[in-house]
Amino acid sequence: MSGNTFGNLFAVTNFGESHGPAIGCVIDGCPPGMDLCEADIQADLDRRRPGTSRHVTQRNELDAVEILSGVYQGKTTGTPICLLIKNTDQRSKDYGNILETFRPGHADYAYLHKYGLRDPRGGGRSSARLAAGAVAKKWLLGQYGTTFKGCMTQVGDEAIPFESWDHVANNPFFAPCADVSKLEAYMDALRKAGDSCGARIRVTASNVPVGLGEPLYDKLDADIAHAMMGINAVKGVEIGAGFASVTQRGSTHGDGLAPEGFQSNNAGGVLGGISTGQDLEVSIAIKPTSSIITPRQSIDTAGNPAEVVTKGRHDPCVGIRATPIAEALLALVVMDHALRHRAQNADVVVSTPDIMRSRLKPV
Amino acid sequence: MSGNTFGNLFAVTNFGESHGPAIGCVIDGCPPGMDLCEADIQADLDRRRPGTSRHVTQRNELDAVEILSGVYQGKTTGTPICLLIKNTDQRSKDYGNILETFRPGHADYAYLHKYGLRDPRGGGRSSARLAAGAVAKKWLLGQYGTTFKGCMTQVGDEAIPFESWDHVANNPFFAPCADVSKLEAYMDALRKAGDSCGARIRVTASNVPVGLGEPLYDKLDADIAHAMMGINAVKGVEIGAGFASVTQRGSTHGDGLAPEGFQSNNAGGVLGGISTGQDLEVSIAIKPTSSIITPRQSIDTAGNPAEVVTKGRHDPCVGIRATPIAEALLALVVMDHALRHRAQNADVVVSTPDIMRSRLKPV
Amino acid sequence: MSGNTFGNLFAVTNFGESHGPAIGCVIDGCPPGMDLCEADIQADLDRRRPGTSRHVTQRNELDAVEILSGVYQGKTTGTPICLLIKNTDQRSKDYGNILETFRPGHADYAYLHKYGLRDPRGGGRSSARLAAGAVAKKWLLGQYGTTFKGCMTQVGDEAIPFESWDHVANNPFFAPCADVSKLEAYMDALRKAGDSCGARIRVTASNVPVGLGEPLYDKLDADIAHAMMGINAVKGVEIGAGFASVTQRGSTHGDGLAPEGFQSNNAGGVLGGISTGQDLEVSIAIKPTSSIITPRQSIDTAGNPAEVVTKGRHDPCVGIRATPIAEALLALVVMDHALRHRAQNADVVVSTPDIMRSRLKPV
Amino acid sequence: MSGNTFGNLFAVTNFGESHGPAIGCVIDGCPPGMDLCEADIQADLDRRRPGTSRHVTQRNELDAVEILSGVYQGKTTGTPICLLIKNTDQRSKDYGNILETFRPGHADYAYLHKYGLRDPRGGGRSSARLAAGAVAKKWLLGQYGTTFKGCMTQVGDEAIPFESWDHVANNPFFAPCADVSKLEAYMDALRKAGDSCGARIRVTASNVPVGLGEPLYDKLDADIAHAMMGINAVKGVEIGAGFASVTQRGSTHGDGLAPEGFQSNNAGGVLGGISTGQDLEVSIAIKPTSSIITPRQSIDTAGNPAEVVTKGRHDPCVGIRATPIAEALLALVVMDHALRHRAQNADVVVSTPDIMRSRLKPV
Repeated sequence: MSGNTFGNLFAVTNFGESHGPAIGCVIDGCPPGMDLCEADIQADLDRRRPGTSRHVTQRNELDAVEILSGVYQGKTTGTPICLLIKNTDQRSKDYGNILETFRPGHADYAYLHKYGLRDPRGGGRSSARLAAGAVAKKWLLGQYGTTFKGCMTQVGDEAIPFESWDHVANNPFFAPCADVSKLEAYMDALRKAGDSCGARIRVTASNVPVGLGEPLYDKLDADIAHAMMGINAVKGVEIGAGFASVTQRGSTHGDGLAPEGFQSNNAGGVLGGISTGQDLEVSIAIKPTSSIITPRQSIDTAGNPAEVVTKGRHDPCVGIRATPIAEALLALVVMDHALRHRAQNADVVVSTPDIMRSRLKPV
Repeated sequence: MSGNTFGNLFAVTNFGESHGPAIGCVIDGCPPGMDLCEADIQADLDRRRPGTSRHVTQRNELDAVEILSGVYQGKTTGTPICLLIKNTDQRSKDYGNILETFRPGHADYAYLHKYGLRDPRGGGRSSARLAAGAVAKKWLLGQYGTTFKGCMTQVGDEAIPFESWDHVANNPFFAPCADVSKLEAYMDALRKAGDSCGARIRVTASNVPVGLGEPLYDKLDADIAHAMMGINAVKGVEIGAGFASVTQRGSTHGDGLAPEGFQSNNAGGVLGGISTGQDLEVSIAIKPTSSIITPRQSIDTAGNPAEVVTKGRHDPCVGIRATPIAEALLALVVMDHALRHRAQNADVVVSTPDIMRSRLKPV
Repeated sequence: MSGNTFGNLFAVTNFGESHGPAIGCVIDGCPPGMDLCEADIQADLDRRRPGTSRHVTQRNELDAVEILSGVYQGKTTGTPICLLIKNTDQRSKDYGNILETFRPGHADYAYLHKYGLRDPRGGGRSSARLAAGAVAKKWLLGQYGTTFKGCMTQVGDEAIPFESWDHVANNPFFAPCADVSKLEAYMDALRKAGDSCGARIRVTASNVPVGLGEPLYDKLDADIAHAMMGINAVKGVEIGAGFASVTQRGSTHGDGLAPEGFQSNNAGGVLGGISTGQDLEVSIAIKPTSSIITPRQSIDTAGNPAEVVTKGRHDPCVGIRATPIAEALLALVVMDHALRHRAQNADVVVSTPDIMRSRLKPV
Repeated sequence: MSGNTFGNLFAVTNFGESHGPAIGCVIDGCPPGMDLCEADIQADLDRRRPGTSRHVTQRNELDAVEILSGVYQGKTTGTPICLLIKNTDQRSKDYGNILETFRPGHADYAYLHKYGLRDPRGGGRSSARLAAGAVAKKWLLGQYGTTFKGCMTQVGDEAIPFESWDHVANNPFFAPCADVSKLEAYMDALRKAGDSCGARIRVTASNVPVGLGEPLYDKLDADIAHAMMGINAVKGVEIGAGFASVTQRGSTHGDGLAPEGFQSNNAGGVLGGISTGQDLEVSIAIKPTSSIITPRQSIDTAGNPAEVVTKGRHDPCVGIRATPIAEALLALVVMDHALRHRAQNADVVVSTPDIMRSRLKPV
């Protein structure tokens, strides 16, 4: 209830500071009997490792995950799975004057007023979210054939054309296009200017069973919005047509149904808060990195005016490494709702054919 | 956990069908000793009553709220407050062929697959959310001076200029402008065409204490996104600069701090998931009404092709009546986090001045 | 989270004051498609109606339940079920000096210090718990053939011999013996003395599926203990051998297993927090009624010494009407864990035969 | 929600297997700014270390706790505190035929049917509960002066006289008497007989603030019962007079009030589910150890009859080491309710004097 647990039945509790001894999470509620080993999780962690291109921070975090509990002889046991990622680069760091002033666009000021103190070691626990997401993904793939994909669709002023999902793994931007030279030039210019920019990310899930989501408050899309807005630096979330639906007519927006499936996907896979079996389509806006070397006006902890310059290694666009996180969070939402759904509705029999079902594994 | 309860410490559980005998909610966790009577709640219900203009459904719902429990001699007692709104217009209705086909853009299909049956009486429990929101608003106003405001900023293709909050109460659109003749003409044309359109709504909260929100999953903005995306027909949520932050530079987006307050509000009042004391700024996209008289292609419950035409009284733009709902949900989020915050941090002492505090009542 | 909701997946939220306009509950998470009508629930309410013997309070509460939502055409829809019990005897009552002093053994003092005020209309919401329990019982009976029974095993100094469950319905004590004349004489003497006494109640559940319960904190027996200790006036809870297990040897206490079932039931149907398929066996201690006419020493709300005499109609043994409540709570615990279990473990295949299973309906 | 998290606002999530690489817990919701180091926690762990007398298992678990997160420069930060206890004795163990048969009185059979598999490494996570309890104790002591004490009051047939709390730390039984030679002889005889026995434990809390607990389901005593029954092997829980209240008269049981305090404590510190400020008094029954060398009748995993003998090092009375666990759980319940109480009721002003308050620190 204190905000560091995600999910109700597939419940992930995170802990750790970026520059502390370790980060990790505890997954409670994973179904038993699933094959699971460190390698299943490590692959997702490696996708967003820093230091893999000149466009992201050069810190060399190894992010090697250990399974401390909940797995016996290679199978999940149904008890809590603790995933631990030790920090191998935990030297005594010089945090400079970070604790004496407040960085504009950063949570410094809000933290200090909430807790009365600040921990400069950083709250980033993204890797632990990736790790938990990897477990959810594996179960959903085995159970329903559900898959998750994500890509960057815009960085700063540069819209990125969608050519193919195949390109995403071949460039540091998670861009779905073959040629990223324009993006590289854009980022280089930005770094040179000592500034940062925002980004837009798209994530999807395919082969999602129909019927997931609770129709009032915990709608599937509401929980997706909660998950996405909870990612650091996210300022906007869209499902399906999103803000474009403001100018759509009802006759256009409403996706027609036919025996062989839906005929469009303005809904983004969710109607009335419940999955339809179409692909979930989510888009998020990520704000520019707040830690930049351009001097800015602020105050110090005594409340007096102060100029702030943030030195050190920081991604000029935090959005670049956000794609795998967004995929992981989407997987956690779907996973939790899959378990919630069968808790209440495991006995439901429906005579109407599932028009999207051909793709799903038998449940 | 089944999705009909909102909030953790100020927990609102909703029940009821639009055309059933009654709707209502139970509020658990309201602080004791607050003055509360039906009139405190009724005002908010009346703001979105149907039948008050030609642009919304002509059903005449009285929406008179009764307090069944939790209040003694005009004061909240700290026990659950049950708010009941009886349906005075509950005649036996002809639902036509609604149960035999699936309306495009409507939750029919997803519901049937989730539950194995459908209740045509409607799941709308918006009034109950308004009622709960009214209680939260009253407490927050008394405790911190917090206030909530909302308006429509776009309807279909028509952007609505912001002139003043004062206009909002004077027109059926919750439009912040003096002259709504263009909007009226637009809606009239739409109704004549048998079609519907989307809308964009803005809601704000002022005098929000600094420090509300949990920094990882249950960020204040994450919980706002959950609440907003849970409103019927919402497809997108923005906080502060929202999707505009994609093309902003970090040097622009990061709001400067000065001893007398923040110098801009791209953050929308939240940094790192924690309130800064600035106004909360939220914007949402609402899709066009799915129930329209234009014929559309669908299937019937046997899975065969069918043409669907939805008759009956429906708002051509569901967004028109959404503004008070969005305000109410924002109040519920702030209320819950105010209680969560003091549970953990009631003892915190901060020497740094609260640069936004002058406006707050002493806590 | 404020303590008026019971259960996680079959979540029951209670509201109402004994002498207020109505009491009731909202059940969220009931599986859809179950036949349900008022009569299914009313029978359980009637079992503990006051005024049915001279040994319980003579208030004439009708306790007629209404289903306000969540049921359509006689079937549960999967949405929240609101059960309302209006108070037909809600005359303006004279609460005398109840609000000016504190009754020994009563929650007056603690309430005032918690909430800063007191509501003399009473917090008793037992009927609503019975109503929710009736829904759970019906589902469990239909799903697994699970049944619940309870009886009084001791009242004050009088131990009650167990002769047969058949007698329980034939006397006002829920006593499992044919001749209750000794109990009647005991109660008459007690009433004449202006005093009250405690009681001991036994409740059981048969045909409970194996595997319910979470092994660490939310053990099935832990949640039973929570439920039972939450009943008004309960001061002790035992599972199976209970306190007798202190003096048992391990060689006696451990129930042997054989292909045809367990050979004893010291465990009370729970091992390691998980149901074994044996009958759940629970015993509870109920303290004497605190509202008695014998004068006692106390203080007034100013903190000065005061003598307290409680007039009005009160059961001389609150335990007499507790049996159906304990059954209802046991049903709520089993129901919630049945849903929790299948959420996580619906796919589990076990080759070992369920040695208690012959009695269960196919799942 | 999967049963491995305890508490709502001071939420402790446990993980780990007794013979796995590590056990631990994550505490979410700890107030910030409290001094905390490993030594604060280690003392409580050491109290129940095995191998410290001949009456408990000779395994040499070091149980050295590490703080992985949530503490910076010796102070809690308000973020999750991960406490890790590595298993230094994690050799590859021979589990013999444990996985092929079911031990009478043990959870083997229930586990296999729940999860479809069994992990022989053991689910015991008691040390992690002690660790979390130590954090709660420290905060409560600093905030209110609350203290926790526990002792054994009976082992098998031997009732243990209460002489003084001072003796508890001086013998391996947590016995409150000077001479434990009779207990030692009793345990020696039991071990020689290859059998085991039960025990009875008493735990108390002093200087508990008045007003903790939620009056309906989450009563303070209900949550205590949940916590205590969740300790391994507990079969019964009493609050205050407990089962003795069955034969008490109301005129005796109801504790009189006077300006200087309550005049007795049959209530055990809780009335109507809310703390009164008196000492919390709890008593629990612990069943005999199920792992004994006496042969017993059971079945194997194929469902065929089998004789079971449990070899290896096992405490002949698991109750001997349960006292610190019960104290820790009581502290966790009080801690969680202290935060819950102030979330809702921080503003409450009461004019009636707190008759127990003199002992409390100013809040």
